[in-house]
Order: sequence, then C-alpha cells, then structure tokens
Amino acid sequence: MPADLALYTYFRSSAAFRVRIALNLKGLKPEMHFVHLRKNAHHSDAYKRVNPLRLVPTLVSDSQTIGQSLAIIEYLDAIAPQPPLMPEGAKAKARVREIALGVACDIHPIANLRVLQYLKNKMGAGEEALLEWQRHWIGEGLAALEQLLANDPATGKFCHGDTPTMADACLIPQLYNAKHRVDMDLSPYPTLLRIEEAAYKLPAFVAARPENQPDAD
Amino acid sequence: MPADLALYTYFRSSAAFRVRIALNLKGLKPEMHFVHLRKNAHHSDAYKRVNPLRLVPTLVSDSQTIGQSLAIIEYLDAIAPQPPLMPEGAKAKARVREIALGVACDIHPIANLRVLQYLKNKMGAGEEALLEWQRHWIGEGLAALEQLLANDPATGKFCHGDTPTMADACLIPQLYNAKHRVDMDLSPYPTLLRIEEAAYKLPAFVAARPENQPDAD
Repeated sequence: MPADLALYTYFRSSAAFRVRIALNLKGLKPEMHFVHLRKNAHHSDAYKRVNPLRLVPTLVSDSQTIGQSLAIIEYLDAIAPQPPLMPEGAKAKARVREIALGVACDIHPIANLRVLQYLKNKMGAGEEALLEWQRHWIGEGLAALEQLLANDPATGKFCHGDTPTMADACLIPQLYNAKHRVDMDLSPYPTLLRIEEAAYKLPAFVAARPENQPDAD
Repeated sequence: MPADLALYTYFRSSAAFRVRIALNLKGLKPEMHFVHLRKNAHHSDAYKRVNPLRLVPTLVSDSQTIGQSLAIIEYLDAIAPQPPLMPEGAKAKARVREIALGVACDIHPIANLRVLQYLKNKMGAGEEALLEWQRHWIGEGLAALEQLLANDPATGKFCHGDTPTMADACLIPQLYNAKHRVDMDLSPYPTLLRIEEAAYKLPAFVAARPENQPDAD
C-alpha cells in the first residue's frame, strides 16, 4: 500500500460514491479533499492542476494522479488486494466490467450535472424536461441491467457472486441517484433492489452514502 | 484462445471501431455479425437475446456474451496476450484506463446516436443545435485529454509508451468521429493528432476504419 493516498471528492458525486465504497470495503483511509462541484470548485486553477479533466473523483497515490472512478477502483484492487473487488478469471472479470460500464458509460454521463446544466442554459430545457431526461436514460440503463442480472446464474447476493465487486460499487450509487434525486419507481428492477438491500447490510456501503460525508451540506 | 469467437458490430459504431482495432492488433478474426443501428436492427428480438443492453459491439466467446467495448478489449488482452494492449504495473494500467474512460465515459455516450435522436425527437433540437452539442462535448473531452497527454512523460509515440494500448483503441475512433462526422478543427490538440498519425501507420488501425468494413453503406 502506498505511503500517501489522497482522494479529491464531492459528497453528491455518484462517481466519488463508487470510490468511497471501494475504499471502505478495503479499509483504506486516504486524506480527503473536498471539491464543491455546485460551487464550481472543479473549475479552479488549483483543481485543474490536480486533474486537467476537472472531474471528480481523483486519487493521488505515490505522487501519481489517477482520474476516472473505474480506473481508481481497479488500481485500489491491485495495491490492496483484500477483499478482492474483481473476481478471478477473464470471463468473470469481463462480466463485472460489463456491468460497471453499463452504469459508468451508458447511464451516468448522460444524466450528469454538467449535461443537465447545458440542457438548461444552452437549450432552454425546463425542470420537467430535465427530470424526464434523467428518468429516461436511467430507466433504459436499469432495465438493461435488470435483464442482464436476472437471467444469469453468475448473479448471487451481489451482482457477481455473493461478495461485492466493482459492479456493485457502480450500481448502488446509481440506484441512490434514481431514488433520491429523480424520485423514480424502482419496482420494475427487483434483482437490482435485492442487491441494494444486501449492499446496505454492509457498513462500507452505508458509510459511503452522500449524506454521511463530512462535506455534505 | 477460444474455439469460437464472434463479434456483433456496426461499421459506424465508434465502440465497435475500438474493438476492431484491438482484434486487428492481435490478429484475431472472429465470425462477424452486422447489426445495422440506423435501421434499428439492435431493437430486434433476436439481438436483444444476444445483448439485452441492445448496444453494439457484443463479443461472444466460448458461449459467454460480453458487452461493453472496454470489457471486451481487456478480455481479448487476457485470452490473447500478444501484443499486449495493457502495460505492466498498476499505475501504468490505471493511466491507460483513465485515458480510455476519458473517451468512453466522458465524450462518447453524450454525443451518441441514441442521445442525438432523443434531443431531436423529444426536445425538438435542430441540426445546428445537434452539431453544436456534439462539438461542445467532444471539444471539452479532447481538450482535457490533450492536456493530460501533452504534459506527461509517460506519453510516447502512442498514448502510453511507443506501442498501442487500449487508450489508443479508444482515442483514434473518437478523433475519426470528430473529423468526419462533425467536421471539427482538431489543431488545438497537436498531441492527439501526432498519436493519430502514428496509429494510421499501422494496418490494424486502417483496416478498422468504418469505410473499410464489409457492412459499410
């Protein structure tokens, strides 16, 4: 494990939520730096020097800066292998990555804060249209994941087997977002809800929730 | 290497383009199935059985279905390790994944066909607004990648070192899209253009281009 480990995070960020889950599962406690996205702290010159992509989260480990939550989680899994967040075997790894990317590529970026701001400011979208936008893309993505998970014997208590993996670290924040930000009915996704229930029995998932962060306002 | 290997692809898909590059670099020749996205072939019941997420590409290997281009590329790298598309070492792997995800999460999904169709059909966006949308998100993402790559000694002839990795397999299709679909001026991104030039000296990248596919129309 590296001597220095620091995380740039924002309590509301779904991608930071994923990394917090991974850190908690592994019992890692990096130095925390809070970047207030809604106050545009990510556009400061100081943060641009930390992460030129100006996205949150960023991990700094042994003076290397790593952006992108999935790259961070796989890195953490390499430097602190226990408990593993990736399964053994190429096919199993591919399945976990597929589920994680199903959230991280196909749902989250489209319903993200910066996209909503563009729709509002540049295209004149009203509150109702913004809500409908988010619900549409989240609904499409969750329906696909439900079908993927419900019909596969590799699904266990969690997305892959009976212990949490990177897939759960992505799914749980997305479900949180769907419930608490855009007030969606998640009953069409019983497999996802069952996995969420299992996840919140673990303190690592509870402690990672936005409202449990020091920078929550 | 698995006995059976099949790819569901579409010539215009940027994500399929990434996988074609990886397959070509490794000299793998899967059975090809063509899914015509603009004719909505991905919404057929037959394709939904192959990939419930109804996205392209999908790899089928030894009867396991793998969706998501990055999961597919990492899988190919595991089953056919030469030449490697991921570097050795946790930090180097993290950097390659960060660049790849900078394209796959932060640029491509937002400027994707299904999002453009929604903007047009549900929000009444005109052609000019759709072009501006794409140029905005592609420009933001490429500017960030330029800064990330230009200022890092780990960048070589390619995104990471002097041989192509998963990062290049993501970057090159995105540059193709920016040039040929939305006619962007890429001169603000000299490092990316230099890498593109190096890439197209390799037949693997040229053969993967949309216009060189059997299903191109």
